[in-house]
Amino acid sequence: MKKELLYQGKAKYVYQTDKPNQLILAYKDQATAFNGKKKETIIGKGRFNNLISAKVFQFLHDKKIPSHFIELINDTEQLVEKTMIIPLEVVVRNLATGSIVKRLGFEEKTTFAPALVELYYKNDDLDDPIINDQHATLLTNTTEEEIELIKGLALKINQLLIPYFEQVGVKLVDFKLEFGRNQSGKIVLADEISPDTCRFWDVETNSSLDKDVFRQGTGDLLSVYQEILNRLGEIK
Amino acid sequence: MKKELLYQGKAKYVYQTDKPNQLILAYKDQATAFNGKKKETIIGKGRFNNLISAKVFQFLHDKKIPSHFIELINDTEQLVEKTMIIPLEVVVRNLATGSIVKRLGFEEKTTFAPALVELYYKNDDLDDPIINDQHATLLTNTTEEEIELIKGLALKINQLLIPYFEQVGVKLVDFKLEFGRNQSGKIVLADEISPDTCRFWDVETNSSLDKDVFRQGTGDLLSVYQEILNRLGEIK
Repeated sequence: MKKELLYQGKAKYVYQTDKPNQLILAYKDQATAFNGKKKETIIGKGRFNNLISAKVFQFLHDKKIPSHFIELINDTEQLVEKTMIIPLEVVVRNLATGSIVKRLGFEEKTTFAPALVELYYKNDDLDDPIINDQHATLLTNTTEEEIELIKGLALKINQLLIPYFEQVGVKLVDFKLEFGRNQSGKIVLADEISPDTCRFWDVETNSSLDKDVFRQGTGDLLSVYQEILNRLGEIK
Repeated sequence: MKKELLYQGKAKYVYQTDKPNQLILAYKDQATAFNGKKKETIIGKGRFNNLISAKVFQFLHDKKIPSHFIELINDTEQLVEKTMIIPLEVVVRNLATGSIVKRLGFEEKTTFAPALVELYYKNDDLDDPIINDQHATLLTNTTEEEIELIKGLALKINQLLIPYFEQVGVKLVDFKLEFGRNQSGKIVLADEISPDTCRFWDVETNSSLDKDVFRQGTGDLLSVYQEILNRLGEIK
């Protein structure tokens, strides 16, 4: 039972339900990039994000990763546990591409082994600046131990998702996670995992199967999101 | 015995001596700010940097902080141990001011207790970007343990320098350190500690006694550097 709209992000609406502890995420048909500077309505996009993210969260749930995910409701909506989002973007990188190449001079496609974990302060006004662990505790009301826990979970999720995607010919290049604190104070995986928040490359061709086709204007967003959903559909 | 010029930075010349393990730092009469974008010759500045930094390094040496410092040679030169500089700028902040206010939204004069330690990748082409510990190990050929050692030394130096400056009415707001690896592989404090690399505020008035007067064009650089040297001269 969808009740009042609590919050509206760039890609989702968040509704209260009649249970105080449960929310509905309703995915928008909107693509944004460069902190909202590029923006476009793409009919059908919300459905792909919702279905792909639900599938990935279900897999992670089965692997005992604590998350907000409860269940898929319909094509564009999913039921989740209510959490207070921790204002961190946790980025895990297996290969260097994008901002890290430009900002730190790593060569394109440098392998990070172990994977590189970066924290960004989720703050649109400040343009989501990169931060270190100590900044994170100061800016996000978390302890050192909680930051360690979050980074540990991010690396564990990476270790689960690399083979999960690899079995359907998709290379997990990098991705962004968000975490929330549930009503009992526990930190759980939240937000979404989709081609909006991951870089996926075809293992054969290295072509992008993610939002980079929209960012860079190099392909059709709906086709590549459909391709990811199709491939995940092959997994038993 | 000064031999060939090995390197020239923004503020210093580095000369080989006739001992393979020893270098001479010769301070320039040059002030730069904003990664070299603002630049001015200020006759007499090199002397202040040299004398102030020698005094601080001598104090730290007496407190058993390992450093490259050997001895003062004359008004503008000092003898140091040869090290390979690790391309890190290690910033310690006791109070929020400058870039951290703008970049992360901390309120001006927020107290950091414990002090905040930040690492920047020393790379002019990339504009010295801020990095996390994991980036540091990847970019500067150091181990996790060495990064911990460097951060620990930086905090220890902060704990020594706060009261050292406070006794002469100077608040140590923040500062930047550099470290080098000596011929036996040991990591030691290097570079300089001076009003070029520290923010010093008068404890009574909070007025700047450092390079901020040049950066911001709010005062006479030589007068405030002279003031710092005078005050340190009072210390027995």
